[in-house]
Amino acid sequence: MSAPAVVVVEPQTPGNVGTIARAMKNFGFSDLKLVDPPELDRDGEAYGFAGQAREDVLPNADRVTFDEVVENYHTIGMTAITNEDCRKHTRFPFVTPAELADDLATVDTEAALLFGREDNGLRNDELERVDRIGAIPASADYSSLNLGQAATVTLYELRDLTLDETQLPDRERERAAQPAVERLHDEFSAFLDAVGHPEEKQPKTERMLRRVVGRTHPTERETSRLTGLFRKAAARLDE
Amino acid sequence: MSAPAVVVVEPQTPGNVGTIARAMKNFGFSDLKLVDPPELDRDGEAYGFAGQAREDVLPNADRVTFDEVVENYHTIGMTAITNEDCRKHTRFPFVTPAELADDLATVDTEAALLFGREDNGLRNDELERVDRIGAIPASADYSSLNLGQAATVTLYELRDLTLDETQLPDRERERAAQPAVERLHDEFSAFLDAVGHPEEKQPKTERMLRRVVGRTHPTERETSRLTGLFRKAAARLDE
Repeated sequence: MSAPAVVVVEPQTPGNVGTIARAMKNFGFSDLKLVDPPELDRDGEAYGFAGQAREDVLPNADRVTFDEVVENYHTIGMTAITNEDCRKHTRFPFVTPAELADDLATVDTEAALLFGREDNGLRNDELERVDRIGAIPASADYSSLNLGQAATVTLYELRDLTLDETQLPDRERERAAQPAVERLHDEFSAFLDAVGHPEEKQPKTERMLRRVVGRTHPTERETSRLTGLFRKAAARLDE
Repeated sequence: MSAPAVVVVEPQTPGNVGTIARAMKNFGFSDLKLVDPPELDRDGEAYGFAGQAREDVLPNADRVTFDEVVENYHTIGMTAITNEDCRKHTRFPFVTPAELADDLATVDTEAALLFGREDNGLRNDELERVDRIGAIPASADYSSLNLGQAATVTLYELRDLTLDETQLPDRERERAAQPAVERLHDEFSAFLDAVGHPEEKQPKTERMLRRVVGRTHPTERETSRLTGLFRKAAARLDE
């Protein structure tokens, strides 16, 4: 599917619009739509909070109406407050951002994520018109996220829909090959000999190191450094 | 394990401290520690951005030194920029927040999540002293999250360590029982008869509805409403 649009309905503070624009750029979204936004000055908080999104996402934001959005997109309205069960249809059933990520990955549709006002979110008469209700799991004691933070969490969860790659390097190859790990264990045994570790305790100490190393998935460099260290220590001790 | 502490190292803007305090309360964290923070006025942005965390998390924040934290906690330093591979140890290997959630769930330890300055994050000389490096997967084009947003995403991912329950109701019982769904299909068949749907097309149309209903997991209320609707329509058509 194409990357969902992000729609903010009547945001009151420019800073939140900037925060949302930044999260969009961080997680690979570009289509920002604003329903009745406040003035967004180039010198104000929207641009101040947008980071590098001040170059593209924020200035390219569209002004839209709520009607245009619900008529043309598969809409997901985000809210902190759901109905308790199925007796009402306005805020139930709901989907979490993680579930939404799985769901949207299987559908070919133009989707739009809708976020509401800072104080009251999306109103019931708006939620009644969207296709799905989205809710972020949070503390039962205080479930209401700030607008910008709610958008950040939601876009983070949906990043696999939009990002081909992240900034993080591929780590799959990063565990040292097992022969290198075995050389580490061999050198450790030689080191125990050299240091005069009691022979009867040696197997147990070797098993200890095998358990520690076994669960750390050491990198090649870590493994070769440790191996070299034990080798050098054993050589010095044998001098 | 106990809930990790959240440590912010030399935050520059009070607003970000407030944002982090709010995310902590949203996701069940309470122990906020600040290294050399700015002035946090009761009337300023820290309290303004903290939501209900202005009542507890924020006023209860401890002032600490970086040394105290690394000496007493299992520390995870968050950064947007990792090393590319294992040739350096400062920023590699790294762990994502989702991996960290799984990992910390299995350890009995007092852990602390460290977040750095708005402009430059944690410095190399600080990252060298923490136990683990944490990094949020983000766009390769723009991976640097705002401080408050980075903390929000991280705490969101770690919520299962701290929250016994969220605000969201248990949904497991919310799919209608199958006999109720079958009654819906029966009434739909009767409705097709009543509406004069061609008999040879009826099985295919029934299968269509079975597929639509099958993947929606309708609630009891949705199922009974639809069933009642088809029954009523059929009755009217038969009048």
